[in-house]
Amino acid sequence: MQLGMIGLGRMGSNMVQRLLNNDIACVIYDAAPTKMTPLQDLGATATSTLDAFVAQLNTPRIIWLMVPAAVVDTVLAKLSPLLSAGDMVIDGGNSHYKDTIRRSATLRSAGIHYVDVGTSGGVFGLERGYCLMIGGEQDIATYLDPIFSALAPGESAVPKTSGRATQNSTSERGYLYCGPSGAGHFVKMVHNGIEYGMMAAYAEGMNLLKQAQSGGQSNTASTSAVNTEASNNSNTSNTVLTSPFPSENPPYAFDLPEIAEVWRRGSVISSWLLDLTAHALHEDPNLEQYSGHVSDSGEGRWMVMAALEEAVPVPVLSAALYARFSSRGQADFANKILSAMRHQFGGHLEPPSKN
Amino acid sequence: MQLGMIGLGRMGSNMVQRLLNNDIACVIYDAAPTKMTPLQDLGATATSTLDAFVAQLNTPRIIWLMVPAAVVDTVLAKLSPLLSAGDMVIDGGNSHYKDTIRRSATLRSAGIHYVDVGTSGGVFGLERGYCLMIGGEQDIATYLDPIFSALAPGESAVPKTSGRATQNSTSERGYLYCGPSGAGHFVKMVHNGIEYGMMAAYAEGMNLLKQAQSGGQSNTASTSAVNTEASNNSNTSNTVLTSPFPSENPPYAFDLPEIAEVWRRGSVISSWLLDLTAHALHEDPNLEQYSGHVSDSGEGRWMVMAALEEAVPVPVLSAALYARFSSRGQADFANKILSAMRHQFGGHLEPPSKN
Amino acid sequence: MQLGMIGLGRMGSNMVQRLLNNDIACVIYDAAPTKMTPLQDLGATATSTLDAFVAQLNTPRIIWLMVPAAVVDTVLAKLSPLLSAGDMVIDGGNSHYKDTIRRSATLRSAGIHYVDVGTSGGVFGLERGYCLMIGGEQDIATYLDPIFSALAPGESAVPKTSGRATQNSTSERGYLYCGPSGAGHFVKMVHNGIEYGMMAAYAEGMNLLKQAQSGGQSNTASTSAVNTEASNNSNTSNTVLTSPFPSENPPYAFDLPEIAEVWRRGSVISSWLLDLTAHALHEDPNLEQYSGHVSDSGEGRWMVMAALEEAVPVPVLSAALYARFSSRGQADFANKILSAMRHQFGGHLEPPSKN
Amino acid sequence: MQLGMIGLGRMGSNMVQRLLNNDIACVIYDAAPTKMTPLQDLGATATSTLDAFVAQLNTPRIIWLMVPAAVVDTVLAKLSPLLSAGDMVIDGGNSHYKDTIRRSATLRSAGIHYVDVGTSGGVFGLERGYCLMIGGEQDIATYLDPIFSALAPGESAVPKTSGRATQNSTSERGYLYCGPSGAGHFVKMVHNGIEYGMMAAYAEGMNLLKQAQSGGQSNTASTSAVNTEASNNSNTSNTVLTSPFPSENPPYAFDLPEIAEVWRRGSVISSWLLDLTAHALHEDPNLEQYSGHVSDSGEGRWMVMAALEEAVPVPVLSAALYARFSSRGQADFANKILSAMRHQFGGHLEPPSKN
Repeated sequence: MQLGMIGLGRMGSNMVQRLLNNDIACVIYDAAPTKMTPLQDLGATATSTLDAFVAQLNTPRIIWLMVPAAVVDTVLAKLSPLLSAGDMVIDGGNSHYKDTIRRSATLRSAGIHYVDVGTSGGVFGLERGYCLMIGGEQDIATYLDPIFSALAPGESAVPKTSGRATQNSTSERGYLYCGPSGAGHFVKMVHNGIEYGMMAAYAEGMNLLKQAQSGGQSNTASTSAVNTEASNNSNTSNTVLTSPFPSENPPYAFDLPEIAEVWRRGSVISSWLLDLTAHALHEDPNLEQYSGHVSDSGEGRWMVMAALEEAVPVPVLSAALYARFSSRGQADFANKILSAMRHQFGGHLEPPSKN
Repeated sequence: MQLGMIGLGRMGSNMVQRLLNNDIACVIYDAAPTKMTPLQDLGATATSTLDAFVAQLNTPRIIWLMVPAAVVDTVLAKLSPLLSAGDMVIDGGNSHYKDTIRRSATLRSAGIHYVDVGTSGGVFGLERGYCLMIGGEQDIATYLDPIFSALAPGESAVPKTSGRATQNSTSERGYLYCGPSGAGHFVKMVHNGIEYGMMAAYAEGMNLLKQAQSGGQSNTASTSAVNTEASNNSNTSNTVLTSPFPSENPPYAFDLPEIAEVWRRGSVISSWLLDLTAHALHEDPNLEQYSGHVSDSGEGRWMVMAALEEAVPVPVLSAALYARFSSRGQADFANKILSAMRHQFGGHLEPPSKN
Repeated sequence: MQLGMIGLGRMGSNMVQRLLNNDIACVIYDAAPTKMTPLQDLGATATSTLDAFVAQLNTPRIIWLMVPAAVVDTVLAKLSPLLSAGDMVIDGGNSHYKDTIRRSATLRSAGIHYVDVGTSGGVFGLERGYCLMIGGEQDIATYLDPIFSALAPGESAVPKTSGRATQNSTSERGYLYCGPSGAGHFVKMVHNGIEYGMMAAYAEGMNLLKQAQSGGQSNTASTSAVNTEASNNSNTSNTVLTSPFPSENPPYAFDLPEIAEVWRRGSVISSWLLDLTAHALHEDPNLEQYSGHVSDSGEGRWMVMAALEEAVPVPVLSAALYARFSSRGQADFANKILSAMRHQFGGHLEPPSKN
Repeated sequence: MQLGMIGLGRMGSNMVQRLLNNDIACVIYDAAPTKMTPLQDLGATATSTLDAFVAQLNTPRIIWLMVPAAVVDTVLAKLSPLLSAGDMVIDGGNSHYKDTIRRSATLRSAGIHYVDVGTSGGVFGLERGYCLMIGGEQDIATYLDPIFSALAPGESAVPKTSGRATQNSTSERGYLYCGPSGAGHFVKMVHNGIEYGMMAAYAEGMNLLKQAQSGGQSNTASTSAVNTEASNNSNTSNTVLTSPFPSENPPYAFDLPEIAEVWRRGSVISSWLLDLTAHALHEDPNLEQYSGHVSDSGEGRWMVMAALEEAVPVPVLSAALYARFSSRGQADFANKILSAMRHQFGGHLEPPSKN
């Protein structure tokens, strides 16, 4: 089987390698020619224009787009006039499922089959294989099975779920047809929303362990200069952050890298994300190289929006997402409003710098 | 009637003035003598030692403590040996109700009546009167009625609740006996927890209006340099914060001081906190004088703890409280954990400065 | 001045009365003729068809729609062909601001001016006046000033904000031009989002007071049949809900109607919503007539969506909204997932009925 | 080496088996004699009284308590008079770390060493091994190494974290000395808090997929009977739950068991909890056997309390915990307050039954 890959970023490039390793011939195209060279060395056929790319592909063509969600429409506008009825285009990126539905309808009128594949695995996918969540026409998904099978981790990746012995589902090999157009991207969106929540759960726990090391913020308030709203009776009270909150936590000095490591074995919270966390903490125990201004990829927001449409409560996902927004300074004006209210009713002036 | 006030901060000082205005004789004591002078001019009897303070009071003595919660035990240790059976001590500050229960039991063994009075009103209480939530022995609370009546706003402060015409409750004058020892501080704790939630509700709304002015953060991402987890195919993708999220919000230029003002009249969200917000925004539309590092007085934390003891969900209060913690940098390490995870699985490096 | 009102539900009907009281002539139309009769008695001109309605209005016509957001497009489809260039149509309901922008553009091509007016005040607006948040063309908003002035509460409704003495803003009379098309509905959306948060803040506080009355749920677990994940060593542990959590809360018997009442005077959390809560609790202290399956009007969801577009954290609003979803059973399957996980890793079976 | 085990519930019984399998001699005691029989058959020495239990143990004695947190004090009161200086008592259950610190100090005065071991692994621990988080005196923990090593999963349980090749830490075998008394239970408490967050993340995602199957709640509102707060103009509006919210989600029919299964391979969210979820959904795709009234073991509440003491924001953990509270009906009165407010300001009456 042969596949054409457009977009050779970290994901696309690794996927081509995995396909080549599994005897899928690959034609490749990227606007940045330097990205093609290493793959050429591995056997991929590089092309310098979209026309050349399309010309190199056997019909019906199988084309995989691995480009940013924001440029999918641009790429399709250039690509689709070059295609023929019966060709198949796969969007393996993180597009919104509603965009996918719209694009699928447009291409269908030209006889082109549009397949959406939510792709998880990150930079480790080359070695581990990719988890693939597939939407579109079921017979087309079946036709593409060798591609998916080559990219997916395979049955041996993890132990069989008890009681599934007699089944033969592709889910046990790491890919799944999820439903009509958009279903793959919908499931991937939910997948990423879950990921946000899991990441935030670990982050909160690690943060508490870290703060317990230092005795936390509340210990910085001495009893002679506390801040209570009803009873500010000293001139210094304005400069104190927190309440006379009794912190009786002993001054534990937790070794975070070791704690992350021990949780990897036997515990209920073991996971791949924990493996990564253990690695990151081992390399840099205080995480000094990281800014903590946390980006979001859009899929968390989309999942909240989908949940709102269905009236489904998603408090954990939302909390995780808002923590990312706040990490980027997006709550600053809200905080100023709170400072202003406190000043108005209680005469409190918050201190100018963080504590 | 005569009352002795210990603690002449903003709250205590104003309360003495309101008591004097309502013909309650006041004996006063504060460790800082300069705080007593202006009240002396208004007719209060200043004392320079606790002994002198106690000696000036008629028995049974009525003593009101308006000191920080963290020093109540210290003050009681010095004061209680000077008192006689039958004396009454009132804690008008924001003590934890469990501390109050403990102190009440200790003093009761010496025949001293301990009364807890949650006091709301802030710096406006002198003029508006104070809302008083009272706990302790009911007959003692009844005995102290003239004090509470003098401090409270009185019946005319707000229109009568429909259907209450035939009642004669002190609640309609702004003070209420809530139950045995600690009940007053418990109700005040809940009151302050509600306050946190309301403040945060306004802050979030104002923040959204403010961001809509500027087009929000998402508009800073150009479509040529988006950040999607699955498809980073450019060298610049690491340096971009947000997703290709479609922001179609028109560039409204909202006038926040005017919006706060209009909501004061006829709207469902009119409130005293909104009045204060309107005033703060009128004075300083961009709130430049405020740091946004928001203190918390401890009562919000106590309310969450009480809710946990009763298995009562308090998501709004918790969200409001955590926003304050985060405003003080207390989420920073959690955010670094998130950055580290993203770097591990996706090769993402967050940008070093806030955007 | 003359106004035509379409839609005579609670809001529309009351607004017509308030307009008539302020000498604005009203032509009225509703699909249900019986709704028109009482207003006719007060001087309104009833019409039985849209054609008759339009014919009764002087040009340029001023038409106010007070219909559900979901039928605005239907009404406009019937109404707009009957109108002339220069006519003004006001949408006073809770439409989404993006719908408003779209409708405005459509009508503008026919020379019709479209004005969006977020209207707050509920069933009390007839007496108190309505808070009006206005979007559209500024000169048209100015032309309609007598209408807005008649509906709004007026300057005397609340005390002036300190420091605003020399201004002469309509905000001080209870209405405000907020910006171009959609701005009024955007501000009303934010207003309603804040309302959700405030309501939830009160609800959480009242719930905690209520649970403290009963000693809370945690007290139902006896020490002989506790449920700890690590150490289930009795056959009965499966049937117990909660942990051996130490609840030391004294059995306060709080009088919720009285507490709501006392907070109305002098406290920081006094508000109109609190006034309503006090009234509801006075009428029905245990709120037995209410189902607690809380509807949402859509504006809270829209505000979260707008916040997501701008990357603005709104944790309080979201928590308030999700509590409503959950009150309607929308978390049930999520809870079953949790039960299933607990059964898998710990052998726990949750009890079949609520406790 | 020899160990005495008190408490033979699911956890204690499995741990004895694992110890016996690793050549640790076991003396056992449980108030229910029938629990001892199967372990006797495997080689454990059963005892019928605490005195006999203590007498069977070589000195210095090693005694492991695997009893509910709520009965630890009771067991210690009976056990400690029978012990000698130098004996070691291990609390392997989910005790609060502050209780552990208190108990440790009490026993230390009698020369008894008290060790806290947070134990994770659930019913699978017998086979997989247990993750052990250890607090107390470091030299005692070192002395007990053979016990911990027998219980823990061992180095081969998971692949080595990259870059740790030259280390020789017990964390890589699944147990870790975390610090002085209470440190083990503190880390276990944080572990369980993270677990709550992860579980809720999966539950929210699965719930959204489930609702998308049915089209969600919002689709039940017809456009002819919508509920908007500002514009109720029909008699039927009271009986409608939701807004005219546009749900454009296609009617996907997701296969939840298959989706959980596919996520197990290659995806970023693979974890042991996901493995369990996949198994539960495979057995019972609609989870009909589960009540969804989700218990909590207390450790989540304790973690929130510890976070409050340190001013650490834990929004995800809190949201997860509150969802459990609400699943047990603990938000019902809060919801009634919301219904009551809506009735007051808008005339809305919520429908009596869930939808």
